[in-house]
Amino acid sequence: MIQPISIQNVRWTGGFWAQRAETNRKTTLPALFKQLEKAGNVRNLELAAAGKKEGYSGPLYMDSDLYKAMEAASYALIHHPKYPLRKQLDSIIATLAKAQMPDGYLNSFYQVSQPGKRWTNLRDAHEIYCGGHMVEAAVAYHEATGETRFLEIARRWSDHIDSMFGDGAGKRIGYCGHPEAEIAFMKLYHATKEKRYLELARHMVEKRGSKIFAGEHGVQLEHYDGTYWQDNVPIRHHTTAVGHAVRFAYLIAGALDLAMETHDSSLLEAARLMWHNTVNKRAYITGGIGNSAHNEGFTADYDLPNVSAYQETCASIALYLWSYRLMMMTGEGQYADAMELALYNGILSGINLRGDMFFYVNPLASRGEHHRREWYACACCPPNIGRLIASLNQYVAGVSEQAVWIHHYGSCVIHAEAAGAPARWTMESDYPWREKVLLRVESDSPRAYELRLRAPGWCPKPSVKVNGSAVRALLERGYLVIKREWRDGDQVELTLPMPVTKREARPEVAADQGRIALQRGPMVYCLEERDQRAPLERIRLPLNAKLEPKWEPHLLGGVVTLLGEGRVAAEWKGDALYRNAEPLRPTPVKAIPYYAWDNRQACPMEVWILGA
Amino acid sequence: MIQPISIQNVRWTGGFWAQRAETNRKTTLPALFKQLEKAGNVRNLELAAAGKKEGYSGPLYMDSDLYKAMEAASYALIHHPKYPLRKQLDSIIATLAKAQMPDGYLNSFYQVSQPGKRWTNLRDAHEIYCGGHMVEAAVAYHEATGETRFLEIARRWSDHIDSMFGDGAGKRIGYCGHPEAEIAFMKLYHATKEKRYLELARHMVEKRGSKIFAGEHGVQLEHYDGTYWQDNVPIRHHTTAVGHAVRFAYLIAGALDLAMETHDSSLLEAARLMWHNTVNKRAYITGGIGNSAHNEGFTADYDLPNVSAYQETCASIALYLWSYRLMMMTGEGQYADAMELALYNGILSGINLRGDMFFYVNPLASRGEHHRREWYACACCPPNIGRLIASLNQYVAGVSEQAVWIHHYGSCVIHAEAAGAPARWTMESDYPWREKVLLRVESDSPRAYELRLRAPGWCPKPSVKVNGSAVRALLERGYLVIKREWRDGDQVELTLPMPVTKREARPEVAADQGRIALQRGPMVYCLEERDQRAPLERIRLPLNAKLEPKWEPHLLGGVVTLLGEGRVAAEWKGDALYRNAEPLRPTPVKAIPYYAWDNRQACPMEVWILGA
Repeated sequence: MIQPISIQNVRWTGGFWAQRAETNRKTTLPALFKQLEKAGNVRNLELAAAGKKEGYSGPLYMDSDLYKAMEAASYALIHHPKYPLRKQLDSIIATLAKAQMPDGYLNSFYQVSQPGKRWTNLRDAHEIYCGGHMVEAAVAYHEATGETRFLEIARRWSDHIDSMFGDGAGKRIGYCGHPEAEIAFMKLYHATKEKRYLELARHMVEKRGSKIFAGEHGVQLEHYDGTYWQDNVPIRHHTTAVGHAVRFAYLIAGALDLAMETHDSSLLEAARLMWHNTVNKRAYITGGIGNSAHNEGFTADYDLPNVSAYQETCASIALYLWSYRLMMMTGEGQYADAMELALYNGILSGINLRGDMFFYVNPLASRGEHHRREWYACACCPPNIGRLIASLNQYVAGVSEQAVWIHHYGSCVIHAEAAGAPARWTMESDYPWREKVLLRVESDSPRAYELRLRAPGWCPKPSVKVNGSAVRALLERGYLVIKREWRDGDQVELTLPMPVTKREARPEVAADQGRIALQRGPMVYCLEERDQRAPLERIRLPLNAKLEPKWEPHLLGGVVTLLGEGRVAAEWKGDALYRNAEPLRPTPVKAIPYYAWDNRQACPMEVWILGA
Repeated sequence: MIQPISIQNVRWTGGFWAQRAETNRKTTLPALFKQLEKAGNVRNLELAAAGKKEGYSGPLYMDSDLYKAMEAASYALIHHPKYPLRKQLDSIIATLAKAQMPDGYLNSFYQVSQPGKRWTNLRDAHEIYCGGHMVEAAVAYHEATGETRFLEIARRWSDHIDSMFGDGAGKRIGYCGHPEAEIAFMKLYHATKEKRYLELARHMVEKRGSKIFAGEHGVQLEHYDGTYWQDNVPIRHHTTAVGHAVRFAYLIAGALDLAMETHDSSLLEAARLMWHNTVNKRAYITGGIGNSAHNEGFTADYDLPNVSAYQETCASIALYLWSYRLMMMTGEGQYADAMELALYNGILSGINLRGDMFFYVNPLASRGEHHRREWYACACCPPNIGRLIASLNQYVAGVSEQAVWIHHYGSCVIHAEAAGAPARWTMESDYPWREKVLLRVESDSPRAYELRLRAPGWCPKPSVKVNGSAVRALLERGYLVIKREWRDGDQVELTLPMPVTKREARPEVAADQGRIALQRGPMVYCLEERDQRAPLERIRLPLNAKLEPKWEPHLLGGVVTLLGEGRVAAEWKGDALYRNAEPLRPTPVKAIPYYAWDNRQACPMEVWILGA
């Protein structure tokens, strides 16, 4: 079992993620709060605080978007205590304190818009979900400031939930149509050490699949299909990814938080099985999930359309969170690989380079009509990517009894507790663009332990030098293990060769047949039509095309592009629907990282390029 | 304007179509009558004849399937007066005579199952449609036998229609949800020279789009969408192919029968426009139409899925009939090209080689689960292909004032009236397998006229010899024109080079992107998995692959196969959804004509082969 190293103990010092963390702090989070003010999320709570019974605006889960932004701002506070958003945070917390009802209930939609109707629609009302996000925000705020005001609100709300739902006398089975609170209650348990919050999480994980939504909505059991809400079967009975993608992945992430604490191996095994189905049969090459707009979720194995790919930003984040927990529990690099793939591709595409516009849906091909927007009526994704970037430090490294683990590469300083003593590991790297990662340790006294460096699945031949000499590091389930007595000043040089690779999908994936995707390092690439000399629909890429990476510091905030010789199909002349196939001619082709698309003038884009 | 040469005057003497005509006569038509007995189509009419009010079986258009089979058997009678099915025909005609009501009404569904409810549901009940098929059968029977019994039944029924529907006093606007009777009334007009049948056809063509089905079904006009029945706009207002494909094409075929007789150029122009949209944006490379199962019809330009292609046999036949009329009116080879393409591919695939099993739906790719069946609950296609093959002679050749036209090639004798005198043209050819067509004329005296030989659009360089000497024939709108004084014994040798061609679809056709189809002569090819050394999903065909035709007399009733070197993708090992693209290796590939697929053990099939 790997233990996390908290945000406090990992600080970006430069490179790819320091730049993004700064944009997030300086542009994205302020933009979120501005939008949340404008859309009415803050005012809804002010109305509740003032006891108003009208004027609520937006969908019923408006509170949750605000809470996610508050959580994000709290993370930003950790390394920047004078962060200006603190004022806003504190003001909203004061509003929450006023709005919370004497019994702990807090939900602006029900308090303002539907007084007296609370707890009548667990399936659709997102009531527990909203509160869960408040709990996460409160725990983050407490972690950042040490202050307990917000945490107390969260506890009172959680105690209210505890008084209503559970196995005890006078309680009823309860869980939310949208899972999330499972994660929240486990966080609250860790923050307070109060077991009843763990029990709440356990209740919601274990009872799920009891089909309570059937009774709640007067649906006869024989006509009830709870799949969308993962209420069709008990959690351990799932073998495939089903229903709404964010709900599915949040549920399992929460279940794993529980399993980690309770050492529940059956829950872990079930989660591994579901993950296997998800990643090997229902995930995009860009690391995201949820192929269908219809249910914002899953359909069938290998059904992975590109133009109509849903791949909601939140779903990719949820898969990231789920994979993280599996990695922590198993120490297996495949889970960290999935985190990295989602992070640099399906997640990062969710935000523009400037940091103030967002994708909700992340297609893998576009005819040029799909663009990021400043805000959405359903605005779950913008604050979600804000809080992930704000908290990314915590996913960089971990410790176990005999090892320090590095999961993500970049430039940062990590304060770890290694083999019972503090060790300060400094990492420097132009990752994900360059293949070198330099690590240096500072510690008071020599200590023997393992340094476990993730060897990404995409990397054909990682190599390691220690203090300038090549060492043969054992590759153990996706991590290179360097075991030695580490002394102050020891240096490790990790080289992760990043050849440009052409990727193909299993033949079962109809949408990708005959097509090639490009990847270098963790970055999946795409073609934007504006970079080509012909319309995308005429561009082909031979299997043996040579592609060279090129660092372009002034393009798209600095990216490595891929340049090579593709083929172009002859222009179609006349009206005929079919013609004798015409030969292809060479044409230069330029690919950019997928995350960076739609940051220039609108044009068609594709990840999967037709072969030739 | 080209005039038809009737079935009487064209007799198959050998080759591809003589063989199929024989199979049709000896196997298919007897099988149809057997199935029609078994399914209750005959009994339904017997019940009506006996005045029964119960016991009707099958869908409400059962009569029409029987009539189509009767029409087919009548055509077969023309060259085979002792055809055993005659007895059955006569017995059914006797039943019809008994079943017909005093006012001329005849429809077993309404008479037996819904007495008193006739003419209450023009939209769905196929009432006029069924009668129209009876009229077509009656005209064919009259043509074959000279007897008028059946024709009289048809006339009485038509007079009944005439008494109900039309523009005159006491009549109402009427047309059928399923067009067809327009063709029938024009045939009856030609058989009887009675103008009121032409007027009936005119009424149904011209009034269509009056949205009468809205009123009939109590749908408010603002909520009414008559597209499925082509009842959304007047016929001349259509610019694209819409709604149910068979209905659409039958309607236009009937309208053109009318336009031919009335010299209606605006109707002709509308039909040409619709044809252009159909063939250049909404037709399969196999010549068929109707891409969607949902409406058995059209959806949008370039929406041409392969596995889920509907391409109903009847729809391809309907396009054949529609194209025939345009060709007759314009003398343009493009229409005959469409007839030929549909005939050898989308239509002929509708029946197995033995002649007793049928496709209703003709997909362009199959995972191995799509098979012909002996019969269908909705059995429109089996008798329809039976009657087309039985009547194919009439589509082979035509005459105009100064020309004899050859549209289809094969071995047959054609008795034509050329330049005012009889001319007997004998054609000999192993078409569509071999490129030579020999023609010889017998006539009493030399006559000057043009022989117009269709130069198929697929043929790069047709050439002609007359009496052994090369001649430069003018190519005029798809026909080679050889004008001379034809003398008894003159010989023409037409050579139609048949290179194997690789075809590609416009980039707008998403389903075919990166794929190649094979064609030789009029034949579109497909791959059946059983002929390859690897599963179809791993087979690729490079743009420059060399393919050689091979005559295989013992395969599939004798076919030219295409053999060449394709590529095979490496087998997929393990569970991963994506992998680094692996090189392709050479593999022999064998293609068979599309029409001949699913005549051996079940296996996957595809027309559009992935490129490499």
